[in-house]
Amino acid sequence: MRDLTRDTRFLSINTATVRAQWDLRQAIEGVARAGIPGIAPWRDQLQAMGVAAAAAAIRAHGLAVTGLCRGGMFTSFDRVGLQRALDDNRRAVDEAAALGAQCLVLVVGGLAPHSRDLEAARELVRDGIAALLPHARAAGVPLAIEPLHPMYAADRACINTLAQANDLCDALGPGVGVVVDVYHTWWDPSLEREIGRAGAKRILAFHLSDWLVPTTDLLLDRGMMGDGVIDLRRIRGWVEAAGFQGLCEVEIFSERNWWRRPMAEVIDTCVERYRAVC
Amino acid sequence: MRDLTRDTRFLSINTATVRAQWDLRQAIEGVARAGIPGIAPWRDQLQAMGVAAAAAAIRAHGLAVTGLCRGGMFTSFDRVGLQRALDDNRRAVDEAAALGAQCLVLVVGGLAPHSRDLEAARELVRDGIAALLPHARAAGVPLAIEPLHPMYAADRACINTLAQANDLCDALGPGVGVVVDVYHTWWDPSLEREIGRAGAKRILAFHLSDWLVPTTDLLLDRGMMGDGVIDLRRIRGWVEAAGFQGLCEVEIFSERNWWRRPMAEVIDTCVERYRAVC
Repeated sequence: MRDLTRDTRFLSINTATVRAQWDLRQAIEGVARAGIPGIAPWRDQLQAMGVAAAAAAIRAHGLAVTGLCRGGMFTSFDRVGLQRALDDNRRAVDEAAALGAQCLVLVVGGLAPHSRDLEAARELVRDGIAALLPHARAAGVPLAIEPLHPMYAADRACINTLAQANDLCDALGPGVGVVVDVYHTWWDPSLEREIGRAGAKRILAFHLSDWLVPTTDLLLDRGMMGDGVIDLRRIRGWVEAAGFQGLCEVEIFSERNWWRRPMAEVIDTCVERYRAVC
Repeated sequence: MRDLTRDTRFLSINTATVRAQWDLRQAIEGVARAGIPGIAPWRDQLQAMGVAAAAAAIRAHGLAVTGLCRGGMFTSFDRVGLQRALDDNRRAVDEAAALGAQCLVLVVGGLAPHSRDLEAARELVRDGIAALLPHARAAGVPLAIEPLHPMYAADRACINTLAQANDLCDALGPGVGVVVDVYHTWWDPSLEREIGRAGAKRILAFHLSDWLVPTTDLLLDRGMMGDGVIDLRRIRGWVEAAGFQGLCEVEIFSERNWWRRPMAEVIDTCVERYRAVC
Protein backbone atom coordinates (compact mmCIF):
# COMPACT_ATOMS: atom_id res chain seq x y z
CA MET A 1 0.00 0.00 0.00
CA ARG A 2 1.06 3.53 -0.65
CA ASP A 3 2.28 5.56 2.30
CA LEU A 4 -0.07 8.50 2.79
CA THR A 5 1.41 9.70 6.04
CA ARG A 6 4.24 11.77 4.64
CA ASP A 7 2.62 14.19 2.23
CA THR A 8 -0.52 15.00 0.27
CA ARG A 9 0.51 13.83 -3.15
CA PHE A 10 -2.33 11.30 -3.49
CA LEU A 11 -5.05 13.62 -2.16
CA SER A 12 -7.90 15.30 -3.99
CA ILE A 13 -10.73 17.44 -2.65
CA ASN A 14 -14.24 17.15 -4.00
CA THR A 15 -15.60 20.68 -3.83
CA ALA A 16 -18.83 19.44 -2.20
CA THR A 17 -16.72 19.24 0.96
CA VAL A 18 -16.36 23.03 1.06
CA ARG A 19 -19.30 24.10 -1.06
CA ALA A 20 -20.94 26.15 1.67
CA GLN A 21 -17.79 28.22 2.16
CA TRP A 22 -16.15 28.46 -1.26
CA ASP A 23 -17.11 29.05 -4.84
CA LEU A 24 -15.10 27.16 -7.44
CA ARG A 25 -12.43 29.81 -7.92
CA GLN A 26 -11.82 29.95 -4.19
CA ALA A 27 -11.78 26.17 -4.04
CA ILE A 28 -9.22 25.89 -6.83
CA GLU A 29 -7.00 28.45 -5.16
CA GLY A 30 -7.49 27.07 -1.67
CA VAL A 31 -6.79 23.49 -2.66
CA ALA A 32 -3.67 24.51 -4.59
CA ARG A 33 -2.50 26.70 -1.71
CA ALA A 34 -2.77 23.73 0.65
CA GLY A 35 -0.47 21.70 -1.59
CA ILE A 36 -3.21 19.31 -2.61
CA PRO A 37 -2.76 18.10 -6.18
CA GLY A 38 -6.34 17.20 -7.12
CA ILE A 39 -9.83 18.65 -7.20
CA ALA A 40 -13.28 17.42 -8.26
CA PRO A 41 -15.75 20.18 -9.09
CA TRP A 42 -19.54 20.14 -9.38
CA ARG A 43 -21.29 21.37 -12.48
CA ASP A 44 -23.39 24.08 -10.82
CA GLN A 45 -20.26 25.78 -9.50
CA LEU A 46 -18.47 25.15 -12.78
CA GLN A 47 -21.19 26.89 -14.75
CA ALA A 48 -21.24 29.78 -12.31
CA MET A 49 -17.51 30.32 -12.87
CA GLY A 50 -17.54 29.50 -16.56
CA VAL A 51 -15.97 26.37 -18.01
CA ALA A 52 -13.14 28.12 -19.82
CA ALA A 53 -12.18 30.20 -16.79
CA ALA A 54 -12.28 27.16 -14.53
CA ALA A 55 -10.22 25.08 -16.95
CA ALA A 56 -7.64 27.86 -17.17
CA ALA A 57 -7.45 28.29 -13.37
CA ILE A 58 -7.14 24.56 -12.80
CA ARG A 59 -4.40 24.34 -15.42
CA ALA A 60 -2.58 27.37 -14.03
CA HIS A 61 -2.43 25.70 -10.63
CA GLY A 62 -1.43 22.34 -12.10
CA LEU A 63 -4.33 20.50 -10.47
CA ALA A 64 -5.56 17.10 -11.58
CA VAL A 65 -9.33 16.84 -11.96
CA THR A 66 -10.23 13.51 -10.41
CA GLY A 67 -13.78 13.72 -11.66
CA LEU A 68 -16.55 16.04 -12.72
CA CYS A 69 -19.74 15.71 -10.66
CA ARG A 70 -22.07 14.79 -12.16
CA GLY A 71 -23.92 13.30 -15.09
CA GLY A 72 -26.61 10.68 -14.90
CA MET A 73 -30.28 10.87 -13.91
CA PHE A 74 -31.31 8.58 -16.73
CA THR A 75 -34.53 7.25 -15.20
CA SER A 76 -37.49 8.66 -17.04
CA PHE A 77 -40.09 6.90 -19.18
CA ASP A 78 -40.90 10.16 -20.89
CA ARG A 79 -39.22 10.50 -24.28
CA VAL A 80 -38.80 14.25 -23.94
CA GLY A 81 -37.34 13.84 -20.47
CA LEU A 82 -34.93 11.20 -21.72
CA GLN A 83 -33.74 13.38 -24.59
CA ARG A 84 -33.25 16.29 -22.20
CA ALA A 85 -31.21 14.07 -19.89
CA LEU A 86 -29.12 12.82 -22.79
CA ASP A 87 -28.46 16.35 -24.07
CA ASP A 88 -27.44 17.48 -20.62
CA ASN A 89 -25.16 14.48 -20.19
CA ARG A 90 -23.45 15.25 -23.50
CA ARG A 91 -22.80 18.78 -22.26
CA ALA A 92 -21.39 17.28 -19.06
CA VAL A 93 -19.04 15.12 -21.14
CA ASP A 94 -17.90 18.22 -23.04
CA GLU A 95 -17.29 20.07 -19.79
CA ALA A 96 -15.32 17.12 -18.42
CA ALA A 97 -13.24 17.09 -21.59
CA ALA A 98 -12.60 20.84 -21.32
CA LEU A 99 -11.35 20.36 -17.77
CA GLY A 100 -9.27 17.32 -18.64
CA ALA A 101 -11.24 15.45 -15.99
CA GLN A 102 -10.24 11.84 -15.38
CA CYS A 103 -13.90 10.84 -15.51
CA LEU A 104 -17.47 12.06 -15.52
CA VAL A 105 -19.17 10.73 -12.38
CA LEU A 106 -22.63 9.29 -13.06
CA VAL A 107 -25.31 9.38 -10.41
CA VAL A 108 -27.68 7.30 -12.44
CA GLY A 109 -31.11 8.20 -11.04
CA GLY A 110 -33.60 6.39 -8.82
CA LEU A 111 -37.06 5.14 -9.67
CA ALA A 112 -38.70 6.87 -12.61
CA PRO A 113 -41.38 9.41 -11.61
CA HIS A 114 -44.58 7.71 -10.38
CA SER A 115 -43.00 4.29 -10.81
CA ARG A 116 -42.25 1.51 -8.35
CA ASP A 117 -40.40 -0.58 -10.92
CA LEU A 118 -36.76 -0.84 -9.90
CA GLU A 119 -35.96 -3.33 -12.64
CA ALA A 120 -37.30 -0.97 -15.28
CA ALA A 121 -35.29 1.90 -13.76
CA ARG A 122 -32.15 -0.21 -13.98
CA GLU A 123 -32.86 -0.91 -17.63
CA LEU A 124 -33.31 2.81 -18.28
CA VAL A 125 -29.90 3.39 -16.73
CA ARG A 126 -28.24 0.81 -18.94
CA ASP A 127 -29.92 2.26 -22.03
CA GLY A 128 -29.10 5.83 -20.99
CA ILE A 129 -25.41 5.13 -20.51
CA ALA A 130 -25.34 3.19 -23.79
CA ALA A 131 -26.82 6.21 -25.56
CA LEU A 132 -24.27 8.56 -24.00
CA LEU A 133 -21.28 6.33 -24.54
CA PRO A 134 -20.42 7.11 -28.20
CA HIS A 135 -20.17 10.82 -27.39
CA ALA A 136 -18.08 10.09 -24.29
CA ARG A 137 -15.75 7.78 -26.19
CA ALA A 138 -15.30 10.34 -28.94
CA ALA A 139 -14.47 12.98 -26.34
CA GLY A 140 -12.11 10.65 -24.48
CA VAL A 141 -14.05 11.02 -21.24
CA PRO A 142 -14.49 7.81 -19.21
CA LEU A 143 -17.94 7.45 -17.63
CA ALA A 144 -17.73 6.49 -13.96
CA ILE A 145 -20.80 4.69 -12.63
CA GLU A 146 -21.13 5.44 -8.94
CA PRO A 147 -23.10 2.84 -7.01
CA LEU A 148 -24.94 4.74 -4.31
CA HIS A 149 -25.93 3.43 -0.89
CA PRO A 150 -29.21 1.47 -0.99
CA MET A 151 -30.89 4.21 1.04
CA TYR A 152 -30.78 6.31 -2.16
CA ALA A 153 -32.37 3.65 -4.40
CA ALA A 154 -35.69 5.46 -4.63
CA ASP A 155 -34.60 8.98 -5.37
CA ARG A 156 -30.98 9.15 -6.49
CA ALA A 157 -29.48 5.96 -7.86
CA CYS A 158 -30.93 2.53 -8.50
CA ILE A 159 -27.42 1.11 -8.93
CA ASN A 160 -26.63 0.25 -5.31
CA THR A 161 -23.79 -2.23 -5.31
CA LEU A 162 -20.43 -2.45 -6.99
CA ALA A 163 -21.57 -5.80 -8.40
CA GLN A 164 -24.34 -4.05 -10.31
CA ALA A 165 -21.91 -1.42 -11.58
CA ASN A 166 -19.50 -4.12 -12.70
CA ASP A 167 -22.33 -5.95 -14.47
CA LEU A 168 -23.15 -2.72 -16.29
CA CYS A 169 -19.52 -2.30 -17.31
CA ASP A 170 -19.53 -5.86 -18.64
CA ALA A 171 -22.64 -5.11 -20.66
CA LEU A 172 -21.53 -1.72 -21.97
CA GLY A 173 -17.92 -2.31 -22.97
CA PRO A 174 -15.00 0.13 -23.10
CA GLY A 175 -15.33 3.70 -21.88
CA VAL A 176 -17.23 2.87 -18.70
CA GLY A 177 -15.85 2.32 -15.22
CA VAL A 178 -16.82 2.72 -11.59
CA VAL A 179 -16.41 4.98 -8.60
CA VAL A 180 -15.63 3.23 -5.33
CA ASP A 181 -16.99 5.48 -2.59
CA VAL A 182 -16.46 4.12 0.90
CA TYR A 183 -19.64 5.80 2.19
CA HIS A 184 -21.84 4.01 -0.30
CA THR A 185 -20.16 0.62 -0.28
CA TRP A 186 -18.52 -0.08 3.09
CA TRP A 187 -21.36 -2.34 4.33
CA ASP A 188 -21.28 -4.62 1.27
CA PRO A 189 -20.16 -8.19 1.99
CA SER A 190 -19.09 -8.51 -1.67
CA LEU A 191 -17.01 -5.34 -1.66
CA GLU A 192 -13.53 -6.87 -1.64
CA ARG A 193 -14.44 -9.34 -4.37
CA GLU A 194 -16.10 -6.72 -6.55
CA ILE A 195 -13.20 -4.30 -6.17
CA GLY A 196 -10.93 -7.08 -7.39
CA ARG A 197 -13.31 -7.78 -10.25
CA ALA A 198 -13.34 -4.10 -11.22
CA GLY A 199 -9.57 -3.91 -11.26
CA ALA A 200 -7.31 -0.98 -12.04
CA LYS A 201 -8.80 -0.32 -15.46
CA ARG A 202 -12.34 0.15 -14.19
CA ILE A 203 -11.77 1.95 -10.90
CA LEU A 204 -11.85 5.52 -12.12
CA ALA A 205 -12.19 7.22 -8.73
CA PHE A 206 -11.92 6.46 -5.03
CA HIS A 207 -13.97 8.62 -2.64
CA LEU A 208 -13.39 9.09 1.07
CA SER A 209 -15.58 10.18 3.96
CA ASP A 210 -16.94 8.28 6.97
CA TRP A 211 -20.18 6.79 8.30
CA LEU A 212 -21.26 8.45 11.54
CA VAL A 213 -23.08 6.70 14.38
CA PRO A 214 -25.70 7.97 14.73
CA THR A 215 -26.37 9.35 11.27
CA THR A 216 -28.99 12.09 11.57
CA ASP A 217 -29.71 12.80 7.92
CA LEU A 218 -29.76 10.47 4.94
CA LEU A 219 -27.96 12.91 2.65
CA LEU A 220 -26.08 15.64 4.47
CA ASP A 221 -24.55 13.99 7.53
CA ARG A 222 -21.40 12.35 6.24
CA GLY A 223 -18.45 12.22 8.57
CA MET A 224 -14.84 13.33 8.33
CA MET A 225 -12.49 10.38 7.93
CA GLY A 226 -11.78 8.93 11.37
CA ASP A 227 -14.97 10.24 12.99
CA GLY A 228 -17.03 7.23 11.89
CA VAL A 229 -16.88 3.47 11.68
CA ILE A 230 -15.60 2.69 8.20
CA ASP A 231 -12.36 0.72 8.04
CA LEU A 232 -10.90 3.15 5.51
CA ARG A 233 -7.45 1.67 5.34
CA ARG A 234 -8.76 -1.82 4.68
CA ILE A 235 -10.86 -0.64 1.77
CA ARG A 236 -8.00 1.45 0.36
CA GLY A 237 -5.89 -1.69 0.64
CA TRP A 238 -8.37 -3.58 -1.52
CA VAL A 239 -8.52 -0.77 -4.07
CA GLU A 240 -4.75 -0.56 -4.31
CA ALA A 241 -4.40 -4.34 -4.43
CA ALA A 242 -6.66 -4.14 -7.49
CA GLY A 243 -4.09 -1.79 -9.01
CA PHE A 244 -5.65 1.62 -8.43
CA GLN A 245 -2.98 4.33 -8.36
CA GLY A 246 -5.14 7.43 -8.58
CA LEU A 247 -5.81 10.14 -6.05
CA CYS A 248 -8.00 9.67 -2.96
CA GLU A 249 -10.87 12.14 -3.24
CA VAL A 250 -12.47 13.51 -0.08
CA GLU A 251 -16.20 14.12 -0.52
CA ILE A 252 -18.11 15.13 2.60
CA PHE A 253 -21.66 16.49 2.65
CA SER A 254 -22.07 17.85 6.16
CA GLU A 255 -24.70 20.49 6.58
CA ARG A 256 -24.51 20.87 10.34
CA ASN A 257 -20.83 20.37 10.94
CA TRP A 258 -18.13 20.78 8.30
CA TRP A 259 -20.08 23.17 6.11
CA ARG A 260 -20.29 25.51 9.10
CA ARG A 261 -16.60 25.58 9.90
CA PRO A 262 -13.94 27.93 8.58
CA MET A 263 -12.62 26.71 5.26
CA ALA A 264 -9.01 26.51 6.42
CA GLU A 265 -10.04 24.26 9.29
CA VAL A 266 -11.90 21.94 6.92
CA ILE A 267 -9.00 21.62 4.51
CA ASP A 268 -6.44 21.22 7.30
CA THR A 269 -8.55 18.49 8.87
CA CYS A 270 -8.94 16.69 5.54
CA VAL A 271 -5.16 16.68 5.15
CA GLU A 272 -4.53 15.61 8.72
CA ARG A 273 -7.05 12.75 8.63
CA TYR A 274 -5.98 11.63 5.18
CA ARG A 275 -2.47 11.23 6.54
CA ALA A 276 -3.48 9.71 9.88
CA VAL A 277 -6.37 7.32 9.27
CA CYS A 278 -6.74 6.65 5.55
CA MET B 1 -51.00 -15.48 -5.46
CA ARG B 2 -53.40 -15.37 -2.59
CA ASP B 3 -56.27 -12.92 -2.81
CA LEU B 4 -55.92 -10.43 0.05
CA THR B 5 -58.70 -8.12 -1.08
CA ARG B 6 -61.62 -9.96 0.47
CA ASP B 7 -60.75 -10.35 4.14
CA THR B 8 -57.99 -10.14 6.71
CA ARG B 9 -57.24 -13.79 7.20
CA PHE B 10 -53.59 -13.49 6.16
CA LEU B 11 -52.88 -10.33 8.17
CA SER B 12 -50.82 -9.88 11.32
CA ILE B 13 -49.93 -6.72 13.21
CA ASN B 14 -46.52 -6.18 14.71
CA THR B 15 -47.18 -4.24 17.88
CA ALA B 16 -44.43 -1.75 17.03
CA THR B 17 -46.98 -0.28 14.64
CA VAL B 18 -49.16 0.86 17.55
CA ARG B 19 -46.64 0.92 20.35
CA ALA B 20 -47.10 4.60 21.14
CA GLN B 21 -50.85 4.14 21.62
CA TRP B 22 -51.30 0.65 23.05
CA ASP B 23 -49.73 -1.59 25.64
CA LEU B 24 -49.67 -5.30 24.82
CA ARG B 25 -53.01 -6.12 26.42
CA GLN B 26 -54.71 -3.36 24.45
CA ALA B 27 -52.93 -4.47 21.29
CA ILE B 28 -54.07 -8.08 21.71
CA GLU B 29 -57.64 -6.99 22.28
CA GLY B 30 -57.60 -4.37 19.54
CA VAL B 31 -56.12 -6.69 16.93
CA ALA B 32 -58.60 -9.43 17.79
CA ARG B 33 -61.50 -6.96 17.76
CA ALA B 34 -60.52 -5.90 14.24
CA GLY B 35 -60.74 -9.49 13.06
CA ILE B 36 -57.02 -9.74 12.45
CA PRO B 37 -55.74 -13.25 13.13
CA GLY B 38 -52.10 -12.56 13.96
CA ILE B 39 -49.91 -10.46 16.22
CA ALA B 40 -46.17 -10.04 16.79
CA PRO B 41 -45.23 -8.59 20.19
CA TRP B 42 -42.02 -6.99 21.43
CA ARG B 43 -40.28 -8.24 24.51
CA ASP B 44 -40.37 -5.00 26.50
CA GLN B 45 -44.15 -4.90 26.27
CA LEU B 46 -44.33 -8.64 26.88
CA GLN B 47 -42.36 -8.34 30.08
CA ALA B 48 -44.47 -5.39 31.22
CA MET B 49 -47.61 -7.48 30.83
CA GLY B 50 -46.10 -10.74 32.05
CA VAL B 51 -45.41 -13.69 29.77
CA ALA B 52 -48.07 -15.98 31.26
CA ALA B 53 -50.77 -13.32 31.13
CA ALA B 54 -49.88 -12.42 27.56
CA ALA B 55 -49.84 -16.07 26.48
CA ALA B 56 -53.25 -16.59 28.07
CA ALA B 57 -54.76 -13.50 26.44
CA ILE B 58 -53.34 -14.37 23.03
CA ARG B 59 -54.68 -17.91 23.35
CA ALA B 60 -58.08 -16.69 24.55
CA HIS B 61 -58.39 -14.55 21.43
CA GLY B 62 -57.15 -17.32 19.18
CA LEU B 63 -54.34 -15.18 17.73
CA ALA B 64 -51.35 -16.59 15.90
CA VAL B 65 -48.02 -15.14 17.02
CA THR B 66 -46.12 -14.52 13.79
CA GLY B 67 -42.94 -13.73 15.67
CA LEU B 68 -41.48 -12.49 18.92
CA CYS B 69 -39.31 -9.38 18.56
CA ARG B 70 -36.52 -9.73 19.28
CA GLY B 71 -33.40 -11.70 20.09
CA GLY B 72 -29.96 -11.10 18.69
CA MET B 73 -27.35 -8.44 19.44
CA PHE B 74 -24.53 -10.96 19.32
CA THR B 75 -21.71 -8.58 18.42
CA SER B 76 -19.43 -8.17 21.39
CA PHE B 77 -15.81 -9.19 21.81
CA ASP B 78 -16.20 -9.13 25.56
CA ARG B 79 -16.74 -12.59 27.04
CA VAL B 80 -19.01 -11.31 29.79
CA GLY B 81 -21.05 -9.35 27.27
CA LEU B 82 -21.35 -12.39 25.04
CA GLN B 83 -22.54 -14.58 27.91
CA ARG B 84 -25.07 -11.94 28.90
CA ALA B 85 -26.36 -11.79 25.32
CA LEU B 86 -26.61 -15.58 25.15
CA ASP B 87 -28.48 -15.78 28.45
CA ASP B 88 -30.90 -13.11 27.32
CA ASN B 89 -31.42 -14.84 23.99
CA ARG B 90 -32.22 -18.10 25.78
CA ARG B 91 -34.86 -16.28 27.81
CA ALA B 92 -36.23 -14.87 24.56
CA VAL B 93 -36.48 -18.40 23.17
CA ASP B 94 -38.35 -19.50 26.28
CA GLU B 95 -40.74 -16.56 25.95
CA ALA B 96 -41.33 -17.36 22.29
CA ALA B 97 -42.07 -20.95 23.25
CA ALA B 98 -44.50 -19.83 25.96
CA LEU B 99 -46.36 -17.70 23.40
CA GLY B 100 -46.33 -20.42 20.76
CA ALA B 101 -44.58 -17.93 18.49
CA GLN B 102 -43.81 -19.08 14.96
CA CYS B 103 -40.29 -17.73 15.32
CA LEU B 104 -37.95 -15.59 17.38
CA VAL B 105 -36.84 -12.66 15.23
CA LEU B 106 -33.10 -11.99 15.45
CA VAL B 107 -31.72 -8.50 14.96
CA VAL B 108 -28.16 -9.67 15.02
CA GLY B 109 -26.22 -6.58 16.08
CA GLY B 110 -23.95 -4.15 14.23
CA LEU B 111 -20.25 -3.54 14.68
CA ALA B 112 -18.87 -4.56 18.05
CA PRO B 113 -18.21 -1.62 20.39
CA HIS B 114 -15.13 0.40 19.36
CA SER B 115 -14.62 -1.83 16.34
CA ARG B 116 -14.61 -1.12 12.62
CA ASP B 117 -14.32 -4.77 11.69
CA LEU B 118 -17.50 -5.83 9.87
CA GLU B 119 -16.11 -9.24 9.00
CA ALA B 120 -15.40 -9.95 12.63
CA ALA B 121 -18.90 -8.78 13.59
CA ARG B 122 -20.36 -11.17 11.05
CA GLU B 123 -18.35 -14.02 12.55
CA LEU B 124 -19.61 -13.11 16.02
CA VAL B 125 -23.16 -13.33 14.68
CA ARG B 126 -22.59 -16.77 13.22
CA ASP B 127 -21.01 -17.97 16.45
CA GLY B 128 -23.74 -16.38 18.57
CA ILE B 129 -26.56 -18.03 16.67
CA ALA B 130 -24.70 -21.33 16.73
CA ALA B 131 -24.43 -21.07 20.51
CA LEU B 132 -28.13 -20.29 20.86
CA LEU B 133 -29.32 -22.92 18.44
CA PRO B 134 -29.31 -26.04 20.65
CA HIS B 135 -31.57 -24.31 23.17
CA ALA B 136 -33.89 -23.05 20.39
CA ARG B 137 -34.08 -26.47 18.79
CA ALA B 138 -34.89 -28.10 22.11
CA ALA B 139 -37.63 -25.54 22.68
CA GLY B 140 -38.98 -25.95 19.16
CA VAL B 141 -38.54 -22.25 18.39
CA PRO B 142 -37.22 -21.42 14.91
CA LEU B 143 -34.68 -18.60 14.86
CA ALA B 144 -35.46 -16.02 12.17
CA ILE B 145 -32.47 -14.03 10.96
CA GLU B 146 -33.67 -10.64 9.79
CA PRO B 147 -31.36 -8.96 7.30
CA LEU B 148 -31.58 -5.25 8.01
CA HIS B 149 -31.15 -2.42 5.52
CA PRO B 150 -27.49 -1.53 4.96
CA MET B 151 -28.05 1.82 6.68
CA TYR B 152 -28.20 -0.16 9.95
CA ALA B 153 -24.94 -2.06 9.40
CA ALA B 154 -23.03 -0.02 11.97
CA ASP B 155 -25.42 -0.03 14.89
CA ARG B 156 -28.14 -2.65 14.50
CA ALA B 157 -27.39 -5.53 12.17
CA CYS B 158 -24.34 -6.44 10.14
CA ILE B 159 -26.40 -8.96 8.16
CA ASN B 160 -27.70 -6.69 5.41
CA THR B 161 -28.82 -8.89 2.55
CA LEU B 162 -30.96 -11.96 2.22
CA ALA B 163 -27.98 -13.64 0.55
CA GLN B 164 -26.00 -13.26 3.76
CA ALA B 165 -28.89 -14.62 5.80
CA ASN B 166 -29.21 -17.58 3.45
CA ASP B 167 -25.48 -18.22 3.72
CA LEU B 168 -25.83 -18.25 7.50
CA CYS B 169 -28.71 -20.72 7.26
CA ASP B 170 -26.56 -22.95 5.06
CA ALA B 171 -23.78 -22.82 7.62
CA LEU B 172 -25.96 -23.33 10.70
CA GLY B 173 -28.33 -26.09 9.65
CA PRO B 174 -31.89 -26.84 10.82
CA GLY B 175 -33.71 -24.53 13.19
CA VAL B 176 -32.71 -21.29 11.49
CA GLY B 177 -34.59 -19.31 8.86
CA VAL B 178 -35.09 -15.76 7.65
CA VAL B 179 -37.42 -12.81 7.83
CA VAL B 180 -38.18 -11.11 4.53
CA ASP B 181 -38.99 -7.50 5.39
CA VAL B 182 -39.78 -5.37 2.36
CA TYR B 183 -38.39 -2.23 4.00
CA HIS B 184 -34.97 -3.76 4.48
CA THR B 185 -34.70 -5.67 1.22
CA TRP B 186 -36.70 -3.96 -1.54
CA TRP B 187 -33.65 -2.31 -3.13
CA ASP B 188 -31.67 -5.56 -3.46
CA PRO B 189 -31.07 -6.68 -7.05
CA SER B 190 -30.69 -10.26 -5.78
CA LEU B 191 -33.95 -10.26 -3.84
CA GLU B 192 -36.06 -12.44 -6.13
CA ARG B 193 -33.29 -15.00 -6.48
CA GLU B 194 -32.56 -15.11 -2.76
CA ILE B 195 -36.24 -15.43 -1.86
CA GLY B 196 -36.37 -18.42 -4.17
CA ARG B 197 -33.23 -19.79 -2.59
CA ALA B 198 -34.70 -19.40 0.89
CA GLY B 199 -37.89 -21.21 -0.07
CA ALA B 200 -40.93 -21.99 2.02
CA LYS B 201 -39.02 -23.81 4.73
CA ARG B 202 -36.73 -20.91 5.52
CA ILE B 203 -39.06 -17.92 5.14
CA LEU B 204 -40.37 -17.71 8.68
CA ALA B 205 -41.94 -14.26 8.46
CA PHE B 206 -42.88 -11.63 5.89
CA HIS B 207 -42.96 -8.00 7.04
CA LEU B 208 -44.79 -5.13 5.37
CA SER B 209 -44.39 -1.35 5.45
CA ASP B 210 -43.24 1.13 2.80
CA TRP B 211 -40.26 3.31 1.89
CA LEU B 212 -41.14 7.00 1.92
CA VAL B 213 -39.64 9.61 -0.39
CA PRO B 214 -38.23 11.59 1.25
CA THR B 215 -37.32 9.55 4.32
CA THR B 216 -36.60 11.97 7.15
CA ASP B 217 -35.27 9.60 9.81
CA LEU B 218 -33.19 6.46 9.43
CA LEU B 219 -35.16 4.52 12.03
CA LEU B 220 -38.59 5.97 12.76
CA ASP B 221 -39.96 7.16 9.42
CA ARG B 222 -41.36 4.04 7.81
CA GLY B 223 -44.41 4.44 5.64
CA MET B 224 -47.84 2.84 5.58
CA MET B 225 -48.21 0.42 2.68
CA GLY B 226 -49.11 2.38 -0.43
CA ASP B 227 -47.61 5.67 0.76
CA GLY B 228 -44.14 4.82 -0.50
CA VAL B 229 -42.35 3.36 -3.48
CA ILE B 230 -41.98 -0.35 -2.75
CA ASP B 231 -43.61 -2.70 -5.22
CA LEU B 232 -45.26 -4.67 -2.43
CA ARG B 233 -47.31 -6.99 -4.57
CA ARG B 234 -44.34 -8.00 -6.67
CA ILE B 235 -42.31 -8.94 -3.61
CA ARG B 236 -45.26 -10.81 -2.07
CA GLY B 237 -45.54 -12.65 -5.38
CA TRP B 238 -41.93 -13.78 -5.07
CA VAL B 239 -42.42 -14.86 -1.48
CA GLU B 240 -45.55 -16.84 -2.30
CA ALA B 241 -43.96 -18.32 -5.42
CA ALA B 242 -41.29 -19.63 -3.04
CA GLY B 243 -44.08 -21.36 -1.12
CA PHE B 244 -44.64 -19.00 1.80
CA GLN B 245 -48.16 -19.39 3.17
CA GLY B 246 -47.87 -17.50 6.45
CA LEU B 247 -49.40 -14.24 7.55
CA CYS B 248 -48.30 -10.83 6.26
CA GLU B 249 -47.06 -8.85 9.25
CA VAL B 250 -47.35 -5.06 9.25
CA GLU B 251 -44.46 -3.40 11.07
CA ILE B 252 -44.32 0.40 10.90
CA PHE B 253 -42.09 2.61 13.04
CA SER B 254 -43.47 6.09 12.49
CA GLU B 255 -42.72 8.59 15.20
CA ARG B 256 -44.16 11.66 13.55
CA ASN B 257 -47.14 10.19 11.76
CA TRP B 258 -48.77 6.86 12.61
CA TRP B 259 -47.68 6.81 16.24
CA ARG B 260 -49.53 10.09 16.68
CA ARG B 261 -52.84 8.98 15.22
CA PRO B 262 -55.77 7.36 17.01
CA MET B 263 -55.27 3.63 17.30
CA ALA B 264 -58.48 2.74 15.47
CA GLU B 265 -57.39 4.82 12.50
CA VAL B 266 -54.03 3.08 12.38
CA ILE B 267 -55.54 -0.41 12.47
CA ASP B 268 -58.26 0.47 9.98
CA THR B 269 -55.66 1.89 7.61
CA CYS B 270 -53.48 -1.20 7.95
CA VAL B 271 -56.47 -3.36 7.00
CA GLU B 272 -57.52 -1.15 4.13
CA ARG B 273 -54.03 -0.90 2.63
CA TYR B 274 -53.33 -4.58 3.14
CA ARG B 275 -56.41 -5.32 1.08
CA ALA B 276 -55.85 -2.62 -1.54
CA VAL B 277 -52.12 -2.46 -2.28
CA CYS B 278 -50.38 -5.52 -0.84
